[in-house]
Amino acid sequence: MQALKVSRESKKEDTIIEVNGIKIGGKKIVVIAGPCAVTSKEEIIEIAKAVKKAGACMLRGGAFKPRTSPYSFQGMGEEGLKFLAAAKKETGLPIVTEAMDTRDMKLVEKYADIIQIGARNMQNFSLLKEAGKTKKPVLLKRGLTATIDEFLNAAEYIAAEGNDRIILCERGIRTFNTYTRNTLDLSIVPALKEKTHLPIIVDPSHATGIRNFVLPMSKAAIACGADGLIIEAHTNPEKSESDKEQTISIEELKTLIEETRKVAKSVGRGM
Amino acid sequence: MQALKVSRESKKEDTIIEVNGIKIGGKKIVVIAGPCAVTSKEEIIEIAKAVKKAGACMLRGGAFKPRTSPYSFQGMGEEGLKFLAAAKKETGLPIVTEAMDTRDMKLVEKYADIIQIGARNMQNFSLLKEAGKTKKPVLLKRGLTATIDEFLNAAEYIAAEGNDRIILCERGIRTFNTYTRNTLDLSIVPALKEKTHLPIIVDPSHATGIRNFVLPMSKAAIACGADGLIIEAHTNPEKSESDKEQTISIEELKTLIEETRKVAKSVGRGM
Amino acid sequence: MQALKVSRESKKEDTIIEVNGIKIGGKKIVVIAGPCAVTSKEEIIEIAKAVKKAGACMLRGGAFKPRTSPYSFQGMGEEGLKFLAAAKKETGLPIVTEAMDTRDMKLVEKYADIIQIGARNMQNFSLLKEAGKTKKPVLLKRGLTATIDEFLNAAEYIAAEGNDRIILCERGIRTFNTYTRNTLDLSIVPALKEKTHLPIIVDPSHATGIRNFVLPMSKAAIACGADGLIIEAHTNPEKSESDKEQTISIEELKTLIEETRKVAKSVGRGM
Amino acid sequence: MQALKVSRESKKEDTIIEVNGIKIGGKKIVVIAGPCAVTSKEEIIEIAKAVKKAGACMLRGGAFKPRTSPYSFQGMGEEGLKFLAAAKKETGLPIVTEAMDTRDMKLVEKYADIIQIGARNMQNFSLLKEAGKTKKPVLLKRGLTATIDEFLNAAEYIAAEGNDRIILCERGIRTFNTYTRNTLDLSIVPALKEKTHLPIIVDPSHATGIRNFVLPMSKAAIACGADGLIIEAHTNPEKSESDKEQTISIEELKTLIEETRKVAKSVGRGM
Repeated sequence: MQALKVSRESKKEDTIIEVNGIKIGGKKIVVIAGPCAVTSKEEIIEIAKAVKKAGACMLRGGAFKPRTSPYSFQGMGEEGLKFLAAAKKETGLPIVTEAMDTRDMKLVEKYADIIQIGARNMQNFSLLKEAGKTKKPVLLKRGLTATIDEFLNAAEYIAAEGNDRIILCERGIRTFNTYTRNTLDLSIVPALKEKTHLPIIVDPSHATGIRNFVLPMSKAAIACGADGLIIEAHTNPEKSESDKEQTISIEELKTLIEETRKVAKSVGRGM
Repeated sequence: MQALKVSRESKKEDTIIEVNGIKIGGKKIVVIAGPCAVTSKEEIIEIAKAVKKAGACMLRGGAFKPRTSPYSFQGMGEEGLKFLAAAKKETGLPIVTEAMDTRDMKLVEKYADIIQIGARNMQNFSLLKEAGKTKKPVLLKRGLTATIDEFLNAAEYIAAEGNDRIILCERGIRTFNTYTRNTLDLSIVPALKEKTHLPIIVDPSHATGIRNFVLPMSKAAIACGADGLIIEAHTNPEKSESDKEQTISIEELKTLIEETRKVAKSVGRGM
Repeated sequence: MQALKVSRESKKEDTIIEVNGIKIGGKKIVVIAGPCAVTSKEEIIEIAKAVKKAGACMLRGGAFKPRTSPYSFQGMGEEGLKFLAAAKKETGLPIVTEAMDTRDMKLVEKYADIIQIGARNMQNFSLLKEAGKTKKPVLLKRGLTATIDEFLNAAEYIAAEGNDRIILCERGIRTFNTYTRNTLDLSIVPALKEKTHLPIIVDPSHATGIRNFVLPMSKAAIACGADGLIIEAHTNPEKSESDKEQTISIEELKTLIEETRKVAKSVGRGM
Repeated sequence: MQALKVSRESKKEDTIIEVNGIKIGGKKIVVIAGPCAVTSKEEIIEIAKAVKKAGACMLRGGAFKPRTSPYSFQGMGEEGLKFLAAAKKETGLPIVTEAMDTRDMKLVEKYADIIQIGARNMQNFSLLKEAGKTKKPVLLKRGLTATIDEFLNAAEYIAAEGNDRIILCERGIRTFNTYTRNTLDLSIVPALKEKTHLPIIVDPSHATGIRNFVLPMSKAAIACGADGLIIEAHTNPEKSESDKEQTISIEELKTLIEETRKVAKSVGRGM
């Protein structure tokens, strides 16, 4: 059997993905921050400015939201994408936003600097193929119960279509634990570093689901070799449309970036 | 919060789904059988005849196949659907086949008597909505790590679009066990019977991944209240395109139906 | 490596364990029933009479209770064993009761007809060795997270000391599920039947933790080949010292035995 | 309900446990290192000298070994304890060693500076009580499937007997993952820091089961707030009696301590 395109076997050196001048997978750690969902133009611009000032280098925010219940807020759709574009125009921060439907991929590609594929869609193979046909980097979140091989093969679906700019993201797995929302499986960071040349980032917000654990687990992620973090942050966490238990304030984000920078330095990385 | 449409609270009596004269969710147990994937017209017709003779009342077979690797056989697509139609024409058996992509839903709807949504797509919300817009019953497989609430909410995505003909299918969850491919979680049968009015069937083939366990787990499924079984069976299991470890022969299917009928009778059901 | 004594490889024919004339592992299904814990002489005698009348053939009840908290009721100790002896004298029902401490093994051996090793102690190797030195059959419960190999090796610890009268018991594993207390892993019944000659019983009470699921899962257990059931039952479930959510009434036990007998018959077994 | 003795509610300030002048739970990180099992006097002395020189401050090594199979090496027993004493005499390193049997507790207490309770015995309540009656600190390993409440209640069994010098140890949980032996659940470090005043250390060797992951996961453990590490190290890892895949060399231990020290400093700790 031939080695996967995404495997170290196929390519020894680390893949570095450049997005608007920011390098992911290089010596410097990237911090992507923002709200769970986009809910208004004013708010997303305000948050974008705030996370930029706190030190984040990219803006996250969902316009299409995968929700357990069909009756929960499903996102603003294209309007949300336009608001993200406005926030980018104001701040210069590149946009990371999710695509959930093959039919929206072109639309998301138009607005996003990085297209996110969510955990629930990690084995939505049609969606992966469509992401592979875009010209934008893809942030692929690990499924809640994905093995490392399934994760790499999901990335391969994207790569096989010709898009090799893929960022892997550990965001917690489902175990018997209930004290956190999911169980952050940090050992996958060194494991992936052995098996693939792709950059790996960590989402401590979704993994733990608890505000107070976002800081320590961010430090841990960087200490074991992650290339970046994706953090839910909001100017007013209590107003967050969803996931408010895990959303940190801008002040907390600032502290997180400062403290994590020290850990990054201790393992020979910058931020 | 309002009760889900799929909940017992919304509707007390059991939903019975009629497909070409066969009732699912009524007193009689249904057995759906067939190969993992359709690979040729001759073969699928041969298998259809064989499973019918063995006692199955519907034919399963995949034209669109979700596969871990992008380099594995992805199914025959529309041609496979046409071969299924040919098998139906020969035998009268209604067809259960999977849709994986919103853009193929109309096509699958045209050929399928029951549209299957696979475990990996249980939270592919766009796909669920599209299935909800069809006129055909939907067989919704439980995700590998889905809680009972996530499972019911996934069904609700279909129901919310106006399609209330939904069949739930337990097909194993992912646990620490490795002696079976997945862990068949049969307790969900009585749990779902309490919470929902929808019929529930069990897939012991995917759940266990082991031929020898298909018979005993089929009996167990019926004993605890399942309304039916979906079984991988092939005239030549060794030639099965995928999943051959769990595919039973026609002879074994015949035995399974005979022996399971006795169990069905012992719990006051027919077959 | 040599085959384990408990393996089919070492001994082809099923081991049948005879306890006071009752055979476990033979054609007839055994039902062991009783309260979680012994709390008074009068109560345990009353329950013993009631479960006997309902059709159970052995009495379960704990004198030494493993409890998560050190401040929960820890069982009556030797006094509880004496009350079990009194109940046996009144009804003739053999006693199944747990040993938790190597230092109590001789004491438990004196009163018990079958010595139970609980799930939390499945890899308490000192306790297993001590059980292996007794003259009484041992009921070994599967640990919450035990693989099939760990389970069989735990049994081997007992067999290696010279006691080959071991009954294995599936009682649920820990998974991400929370709708049941544990996840009943019934596929292990046919799997163990292949790998070992020892009898296998199922504990649907601890596995599900829910009264309403005890009946359907008992039927399922017998349907897939279990040799018996161990059921928490009480003359007054609401008064049960612990585990009351899963304890069934005597009336429910009677129904369970009647209905399960039909399933047993349908798979060629008696009760 | 009254708060547990081990809870933050009962005692606000961190418990610092002093062992031969070394403080566990204070500002400085402790590193405990040594082989899985003691196999000879010469070897354990040689390893003790080597780990000391590499920077470790305590020696670990098993004289009583819990093994899945009864036919695997079960440890040297008292002779092993004597060899550990000899190693202590030579190097001054305090000894961490496991007790598995209530009847050996006095013996282990005599030789050990810290008595270890292994993961499989986390709910061996008799053993916990016996450890609670000793005068030595207890290192309590988390069970493979223990919830945080079960873990704290297990510690409470020890504390309830009057021994409040307890060190908690995260050593991996069992999940669906197979790329590591267990899944290191580092989020429990900040979670425990909130709930208990007891010190928390991490065992990356058993958690991952893979030599190459011991270093990155050690860094991560310290980054998220662990008070120490327990590491399997050997002068000749290939000769290690068991667990050789996860045992690091002395050279690797030296690097680990140097690199982890930098991370410790970055989070305001010393080593």
